[in-house]
Amino acid sequence: LLHAAKVDRQAPILTVQYMFFKRVHIFGVGLIGGSFALALKRAGLAGHIAGSDSEKTLEKALTAGIIDEPCKLDSVRALDNSDLVYLAAPVRAIIHFLETDAKFIKPGALITDAGSTKREVCRAAREGVPQGAGFVAGHPMAGSHNSGVEYARADLFEGASYAVVIEPQPGESNSGASRTLIDVVKAIGGVPVLTTAEEHDRVVARSSHAPQLLSTALALAVSKRGGDMARLSGRGFLEMTRLAMSEWSVWEDICRTNADEIAAALAEVIGETESLVDRLKGGDLAGIGDRFNLARRFAEQLHRPGRSKGQQ
Amino acid sequence: LLHAAKVDRQAPILTVQYMFFKRVHIFGVGLIGGSFALALKRAGLAGHIAGSDSEKTLEKALTAGIIDEPCKLDSVRALDNSDLVYLAAPVRAIIHFLETDAKFIKPGALITDAGSTKREVCRAAREGVPQGAGFVAGHPMAGSHNSGVEYARADLFEGASYAVVIEPQPGESNSGASRTLIDVVKAIGGVPVLTTAEEHDRVVARSSHAPQLLSTALALAVSKRGGDMARLSGRGFLEMTRLAMSEWSVWEDICRTNADEIAAALAEVIGETESLVDRLKGGDLAGIGDRFNLARRFAEQLHRPGRSKGQQ
Repeated sequence: LLHAAKVDRQAPILTVQYMFFKRVHIFGVGLIGGSFALALKRAGLAGHIAGSDSEKTLEKALTAGIIDEPCKLDSVRALDNSDLVYLAAPVRAIIHFLETDAKFIKPGALITDAGSTKREVCRAAREGVPQGAGFVAGHPMAGSHNSGVEYARADLFEGASYAVVIEPQPGESNSGASRTLIDVVKAIGGVPVLTTAEEHDRVVARSSHAPQLLSTALALAVSKRGGDMARLSGRGFLEMTRLAMSEWSVWEDICRTNADEIAAALAEVIGETESLVDRLKGGDLAGIGDRFNLARRFAEQLHRPGRSKGQQ
Repeated sequence: LLHAAKVDRQAPILTVQYMFFKRVHIFGVGLIGGSFALALKRAGLAGHIAGSDSEKTLEKALTAGIIDEPCKLDSVRALDNSDLVYLAAPVRAIIHFLETDAKFIKPGALITDAGSTKREVCRAAREGVPQGAGFVAGHPMAGSHNSGVEYARADLFEGASYAVVIEPQPGESNSGASRTLIDVVKAIGGVPVLTTAEEHDRVVARSSHAPQLLSTALALAVSKRGGDMARLSGRGFLEMTRLAMSEWSVWEDICRTNADEIAAALAEVIGETESLVDRLKGGDLAGIGDRFNLARRFAEQLHRPGRSKGQQ
């Protein structure tokens, strides 16, 4: 895979540099971390891949050929010779890693993460990642109903948006690292979406976090009306309450690190809903129809075929 | 199919009566009306099936063998010899039919509807259906993303809840008609759910109508933040905005005939959402977690396998 063609104007020959990471470390070998390892290998980008996670997960990952070497979670020596460190744990664990362990990473290595929120992660990286190592925050919009390394697959990122956080940073090392991450994302089939930590958190609060809590609020509201509700529920209701089955352990970190934007996003949805309630009470069917049709046109654009598959 | 075993205590023999409708009329031959016709035929319950709808739809239904005879929408003579009249048009058309045309239905016939709301339909039936004809309101919780007679299928109702409205009515004819509809629902594979018009409208406001308008409100709120949103949207967001693509022509009637309950249901969801927003702003992660887990347990019950497939 061609990474960058460097033309040395002083020399009469063209130097072609291939992108290859001799040693990779995956911190958190779940659906995302495991799939990233498989995708790297399939693309021919990686040599030796080590992973740290719970013993049980590492055993599964080793058996499935996803990693070559298991590392204990508290073993940081493995990091000092890694060329690429991929942080795919929950956000709080990523932040802790950046604050505490990132200093062991060797100069010149690429460090990136797959956390669901970006402002707190970037803050931790600014404090904890040593000068010389290149940290670039990322967020693959990929996933499935199923989590866990047993669902990892090499094509998880194919056609999916992959946020790459471009921060205004001093120095060249970060912009080089950003270019490298963009090339990696493309090589594994993803669609790089350049953003800032602030824009990312604002956008995903609306496109991911608010929908999650809205599903939770709907399930809560209906649960209080008693069990008879379930007998007369339709497909649409099941669809709107599926997200409510998400694990709090994942969402706790997201709510903690993006609370302000999620609150603002939910307030916007409350405002639109209140406007519909007012019109229902006032018998303004035409007004509801206008809003209904506006929403329909927007939703049809979102759902039209050919858009990035946008899994979450 | 055994409808009822009548024991005549005066006679020494057991009379067994089979349920069979010699002439059926389907008013509105779309997904539901067409599927009902196919299901009746498959169960051996129907002889001749006539249908009224637009000319184009009737042509499709005739070609596909769903109906035996097309009737113009304004032709009511067909009704005076029907044994079963099935109203599967939008709610406002059902109400208009009951107020204007139901008087042509012959005594002893079973009249039922598949409308999405029930209070206004039952009011119209009380005013328009002649004494002697048995009207029982119904609502199959069946459907699919696709509407139209081209998607009709004989097994649409299999395993799906089917609301049968039991109203406190004077006279025997209605309770006999209710028993007949319940038998029909069972014969086509549905699961009869006995309810009243008030309970039905209260429940579906929460399990169907509020989720619809919540999806609309979410799409509206996000659409106002600009197009970049779409690049970083995930699977959960697509799921929560799919209902927003519904046709207003269907929902206008529902909003018109169930406005009070829908407004109340949305206000309940707003209340739960506001409570989450307050906790986000106050940093009360534990409080959000409690609600998250309550909602998750409820949603898991709703989604567990073996429940009525509950399509909408």
